Amino acid sequence: MDVYISGVGMTKFGRSKESLEKMMAEAASSALGKAQLERADAIYLGFMNVEGFVGDSSFAALLANTLGLTIPSSRVEIVSSTGAGAFETAFYAVASGHMKHVLVLAGEKMTHLPTAKTTRILSEGIDRSERRYGATIPALAAMITQKYAREFNLSPLKLEDILAQVAIKNHSNGTLNPYAQFRKMITKQDYLKSQMVSYPLRLYDCAPITDGASAVVLTSQPAPIKVSGIGHATETTAVRHRTSCTSFNSTKEAAQKAYTMAQLNPSDIQFAEVHDAFTPFEIIGTEGLGFFSAGEGWKALEEGITHLRGRLPINPSGGLKARGDPVGASGLAQLVEIVYQLRGEAGTERQLQRAEIGLAQSDGGLGNNNLVTILERADRKRILKVGSTRLREGRSPDDHPEMSVSKRSTPSPPPLGVGVLETFTTLYAVPEGFRSPLTLAFVKTKEGEVVMACNPDYRSPKQLKMGEKVSLKTREGLFVFEKLTFWNRLKDWMKNRDTSLF
Amino acid sequence: MDVYISGVGMTKFGRSKESLEKMMAEAASSALGKAQLERADAIYLGFMNVEGFVGDSSFAALLANTLGLTIPSSRVEIVSSTGAGAFETAFYAVASGHMKHVLVLAGEKMTHLPTAKTTRILSEGIDRSERRYGATIPALAAMITQKYAREFNLSPLKLEDILAQVAIKNHSNGTLNPYAQFRKMITKQDYLKSQMVSYPLRLYDCAPITDGASAVVLTSQPAPIKVSGIGHATETTAVRHRTSCTSFNSTKEAAQKAYTMAQLNPSDIQFAEVHDAFTPFEIIGTEGLGFFSAGEGWKALEEGITHLRGRLPINPSGGLKARGDPVGASGLAQLVEIVYQLRGEAGTERQLQRAEIGLAQSDGGLGNNNLVTILERADRKRILKVGSTRLREGRSPDDHPEMSVSKRSTPSPPPLGVGVLETFTTLYAVPEGFRSPLTLAFVKTKEGEVVMACNPDYRSPKQLKMGEKVSLKTREGLFVFEKLTFWNRLKDWMKNRDTSLF
Repeated sequence: MDVYISGVGMTKFGRSKESLEKMMAEAASSALGKAQLERADAIYLGFMNVEGFVGDSSFAALLANTLGLTIPSSRVEIVSSTGAGAFETAFYAVASGHMKHVLVLAGEKMTHLPTAKTTRILSEGIDRSERRYGATIPALAAMITQKYAREFNLSPLKLEDILAQVAIKNHSNGTLNPYAQFRKMITKQDYLKSQMVSYPLRLYDCAPITDGASAVVLTSQPAPIKVSGIGHATETTAVRHRTSCTSFNSTKEAAQKAYTMAQLNPSDIQFAEVHDAFTPFEIIGTEGLGFFSAGEGWKALEEGITHLRGRLPINPSGGLKARGDPVGASGLAQLVEIVYQLRGEAGTERQLQRAEIGLAQSDGGLGNNNLVTILERADRKRILKVGSTRLREGRSPDDHPEMSVSKRSTPSPPPLGVGVLETFTTLYAVPEGFRSPLTLAFVKTKEGEVVMACNPDYRSPKQLKMGEKVSLKTREGLFVFEKLTFWNRLKDWMKNRDTSLF
Repeated sequence: MDVYISGVGMTKFGRSKESLEKMMAEAASSALGKAQLERADAIYLGFMNVEGFVGDSSFAALLANTLGLTIPSSRVEIVSSTGAGAFETAFYAVASGHMKHVLVLAGEKMTHLPTAKTTRILSEGIDRSERRYGATIPALAAMITQKYAREFNLSPLKLEDILAQVAIKNHSNGTLNPYAQFRKMITKQDYLKSQMVSYPLRLYDCAPITDGASAVVLTSQPAPIKVSGIGHATETTAVRHRTSCTSFNSTKEAAQKAYTMAQLNPSDIQFAEVHDAFTPFEIIGTEGLGFFSAGEGWKALEEGITHLRGRLPINPSGGLKARGDPVGASGLAQLVEIVYQLRGEAGTERQLQRAEIGLAQSDGGLGNNNLVTILERADRKRILKVGSTRLREGRSPDDHPEMSVSKRSTPSPPPLGVGVLETFTTLYAVPEGFRSPLTLAFVKTKEGEVVMACNPDYRSPKQLKMGEKVSLKTREGLFVFEKLTFWNRLKDWMKNRDTSLF
């Protein structure tokens, strides 16, 4: 059964004094009003961590109560892709024919907590062993960024320039969006002045902490907007164990599924909302979605292709970067923006001219989950041939090598000795209990295993080089790496000469 | 599209040393093995509060990884009906025709935490204002039980006897279930010796704290077990604001929907798993499901109708009481038991003779959410007429009066003066920060509003009587009630005579 969207709504994103349920009620009323409905057959709710952020559980029934309804109400959670996940779940409920109108409602309230607590809550989604080193989501994103730059030969200055351009573009789009948290232009100067969070990522590379809610009504009755394709895939949680660090396999696989369901190609997409929780992720995302070849996404940005008046506008809403990122709500807010654009309701300045088919991509964690959703105007004329779908560099799910349960769940024997610095970052905004700055790295051992390692003595990323050889030791149960300088080698030899290791 | 069950599995419930993902992988392997599948098209996971109990989020991707898959993986949460909610969500995904085989996987790991912390986590599902008084889930369950006893004229001794019978029956069934946490018979003596948790509920009235996981594979390919009906409904979160405290409207509404979808009557059901998180809830549940009239459920128990060899066995598995209650997993474990029975795989002693159609009812919170699921053997001959469904005392969703948003979200003005003691309990196992014992009550004011109130000075429930008049005051922002004795009135008059209130 085909599924349509009959109404959308959202609160203004930002710092709000309202309670979470009040924000959600506001978004819901707006979407139900647009759909001209008084009640739906069910509610699917998205929060990332309502227990951690707000201290309540049982929110599913509470929200139904708040809306004065006794209808089924279920919560869906997929970390930062929660809003898109609630939409996917609701899509199947309507597509099954068992439900006619379903309300999808997602929100998060975060700004009332101290940043350190918010960082801890968000970090709970990281692989446990990586978390033990003090890694945060920005730290891992920074390490992925370093690998991307190395793989595609971007100098530190060039990388800085590209990331600044993403931030500037999305802030510029945000000024035109009345629902956006940030509505001010930023300059390259502003970008460069913003503090380093985790080298090379600055504050202006990271989506902010935000309160907000978004809502969509799905229906089986024909309406102007149709859901054409949905894809969802997962990827190894531990970033160091992935086959590729410079693209997310989960994005590629989810996109492939969505294109197949929609019987479309990447080139058919006219605009997209891409999960720019970190500016480099917008570039990596546009490549994973098949819009540009690997390593070419930044060129499209430089050429203005992804700008608001470009051939393929990316994040016309301002993205997570400027619209704000109430974690659970963001994936659904992307779809709200797509609907505004498809309906021609984005306002004269933000409205895109070609807006008949749009795509949203939402990342759960560091690409752990990925959801790709394609919406189009129901009156759009299709001239495509069935089965013509092909992703650039597309891969089938079976190509994807995965670690076995046993391999990951038993601790590896300490692979001490010499290794190669696969990627690293210097983290300045450390979680509670760690000293700032903290240098983290992935080191590839001679046996080919990639391990997480740290060195609290390196106070600046300038001291290290991607790809250089380092020594690995264990200290207090953690791997510690060190540059393989003559003096370090001598020091080690001095320390060990009595123990007859040589 | 019809939906079938091709495999089920579960771990032994109880205290486990295994990690949550290992328990879930065990249940999943078992279910996939039974279904002769290596992979599913998607996973729907149920945890109540994995962040609170285990300290991790991003569990959806983690579990897919653990199983060595990159398939879509989403988490569903509806407090204590989470397992049933994940099943419902997966049902629609398969019914939509977009997915062929879906793995439903639910679990919880709880026993490693101190009981006080577990109690706090579980209490987060209670209405905020009721929680402020120190109310716990057992305390509210106890107050509902007191109201039930008063409405149906059960003396304290009679009530005690009925509740003991539920506990004894379910423990007896549990001895026959290799997956049950408790496999020992208990006597009335044991029951009476067990400590009071919240008057009149003893430890043996409450489901235990448990680790465990359960799994079901749903498929669109015809298989021996068919999903015939699913119903889901919600009810006012604040217990004091409900129209009825002696039955759950959400159970009745969910049951009505499930019977309608299955085109069945309550009398067609041959056995059921009923959410006995507290022994009185089994009685109230069997009435809400339409098996027995209101206030008659305990008679069926006394007559042996709900015993393992009775006409309508309830909780052949031992129920939450004896099988154990890993919160997120329980709703799905009920369905696993139904499948074992329908397939004739429950073992010679536990196997029911009439097992062609079974029902499971799962409570989210104190009846905040309710899910009713009906499974039957696909080869069962139907001789029913379409549209003959009728619930005893069934009510349509529109009959259900709800509080408006504004009424609940603004604090009520203090209705001081005299009121009536609607129900009360003395809570012995109090949450952190409260002194034990703590007497809690619902008091109905002259204006007809029911408020939560406490009195820490009443050390025993024997000092109070249901329905008696009490005075209401405020102290530190909470309502405090007191018996309307001559001495209390005199004390008040003495205290107030200088302030010219009289």
